[in-house]
Amino acid sequence: MKLLTFRYEGVARIGAYVDGLAVDLHTAFTALLESKGKRRARQIAEAYIPNDMNGFLEGGKESMAYAKEAVDYALKVKTDKERRLVFPAEEVKLEAPVPKPGKMICVGHNYKEHILEMKRELPPYPVVFAKFANTVIGPQDDIPFFPISEQLDYEGEFAFVIGKKARNVSQEEALDYVAGYTIVNDVTYRDIQRRTLQWLQGKSVDGTAPMGPWLVTGDELTDPSGLEMVVTVNGEERQHTNTANLVFTVPYLVEFLSNLMTLEPGDVILTGTPGGVGFARDPQVFLKDGDVVRIEIDKIGALENKVKKTTEVMV
Amino acid sequence: MKLLTFRYEGVARIGAYVDGLAVDLHTAFTALLESKGKRRARQIAEAYIPNDMNGFLEGGKESMAYAKEAVDYALKVKTDKERRLVFPAEEVKLEAPVPKPGKMICVGHNYKEHILEMKRELPPYPVVFAKFANTVIGPQDDIPFFPISEQLDYEGEFAFVIGKKARNVSQEEALDYVAGYTIVNDVTYRDIQRRTLQWLQGKSVDGTAPMGPWLVTGDELTDPSGLEMVVTVNGEERQHTNTANLVFTVPYLVEFLSNLMTLEPGDVILTGTPGGVGFARDPQVFLKDGDVVRIEIDKIGALENKVKKTTEVMV
Repeated sequence: MKLLTFRYEGVARIGAYVDGLAVDLHTAFTALLESKGKRRARQIAEAYIPNDMNGFLEGGKESMAYAKEAVDYALKVKTDKERRLVFPAEEVKLEAPVPKPGKMICVGHNYKEHILEMKRELPPYPVVFAKFANTVIGPQDDIPFFPISEQLDYEGEFAFVIGKKARNVSQEEALDYVAGYTIVNDVTYRDIQRRTLQWLQGKSVDGTAPMGPWLVTGDELTDPSGLEMVVTVNGEERQHTNTANLVFTVPYLVEFLSNLMTLEPGDVILTGTPGGVGFARDPQVFLKDGDVVRIEIDKIGALENKVKKTTEVMV
Repeated sequence: MKLLTFRYEGVARIGAYVDGLAVDLHTAFTALLESKGKRRARQIAEAYIPNDMNGFLEGGKESMAYAKEAVDYALKVKTDKERRLVFPAEEVKLEAPVPKPGKMICVGHNYKEHILEMKRELPPYPVVFAKFANTVIGPQDDIPFFPISEQLDYEGEFAFVIGKKARNVSQEEALDYVAGYTIVNDVTYRDIQRRTLQWLQGKSVDGTAPMGPWLVTGDELTDPSGLEMVVTVNGEERQHTNTANLVFTVPYLVEFLSNLMTLEPGDVILTGTPGGVGFARDPQVFLKDGDVVRIEIDKIGALENKVKKTTEVMV
């Protein structure tokens, strides 16, 4: 499944994307239960498929199986008792599939070919750092460019989302703890990132984690290795790699991180960016108002956001 | 007020600490509203004083004022319709006052005397890094010492909690956005912190942020400067400073951070630790099973936790 968070007439819902359609999962499951004469249908739907992604992911394989039944039902009936269960995708606004991750953990220096071309040795441990949920925006949002720096940069990243509480999980079992995969642009204010030893301040500015367009579940995308990733700015190729080049793979990262901390459903892990970011180019080139950054990854799709100079700060 | 999160018979509640008593704020406010013949008392209490600290802090000054009325009422009637509104503190378990901060932002290298004694220059910008909510434990919990390192270390820190959504707030207005103050031990696995450039992995292990014993509100603790802090291990003094020595003060940090990101009610900012951590001593000394770390700060109180070797990982 391709899991969505989408908004219709201002109300956020979780959904599944099927051939240009957004299925409203909570409403579809409620309708399915009602069609079977089930009592307390709305409350049961709320328990298994609530309208927020973290809550839904907590439900694990059981909720996921009900979601599939709900999709099949919705595609069959389309509308039920004047409720729409299915929307043409162009009528809804796509939000980040996981709008409020409990943790966002980013990995640095994780692509072999880039490390080797820089004549550096492969690192013994992943470098990890944080972003916070205030950075998350959706696939149809603009990347706000605040007047705090001239050095706004992109980082195309393959990301995975935790689906089951994980602590001390082995690499062998790791993929069972992954709900699925998405794309994140780890947008970075370079000068702010580099003005102190720790990168957090250049990584945590509002709106610096465009995510989406959806979360492809692990039963559809079974192997996170071997996926081509291409990043373009205004159509010009800037980054190009394959997840087969990851030094620390998805299973490795689940083991490594869960050996330190408890991972929870809805935690998002960004696996790192390859060479070709604006800061490392010769000459350097940074993002400017109106630029369009597109990140395309095999078997997921494309995340495309426009940069927008922002002087007003909305709270 | 001294705001608490406490647990009685397994149920978490928010409260106020008054002279050895824990007032159950939600129940006390419900009882107060009922005593006035108010309809929908429970729902109104839920709206203004829900049983979680982040939700309560979102209510701002209005919720805070109702909480004070609730405390006065509870101390007068003690028990109402067989519900206890007030508990002797020794009958309850104190939890971290903010058990699930949306963000935990830590400041490094922030005490003048320590920087100057190391013959370094005062930094132009704060160094900031992250912890996540999985690290938070309460004032009566043990610090788990997982067998992943031999270098467990303490860092006594004065911390403040955001009370109002903050973006681009000036230093002059900053304290209006602070709900109050507490104590956090930024427990660190030193070798893990230092094995890569970014500190996160040594800072994000489960249980590495004991917090408490309560949150002293800004109307009671009006000036966050000039507070003496003393850290002892097994009664032996290890760190000793005064918040007057902070390079980057609370108002400065609110301005600095809110210029980058939106701060939300319940976000916790740790202002940094002074000299005297185990790693920097000569010879180095690390925490071991059974050690008791106590951090005492003027006008707040003391946070004391025992270290406990843990081989089993509970999920």
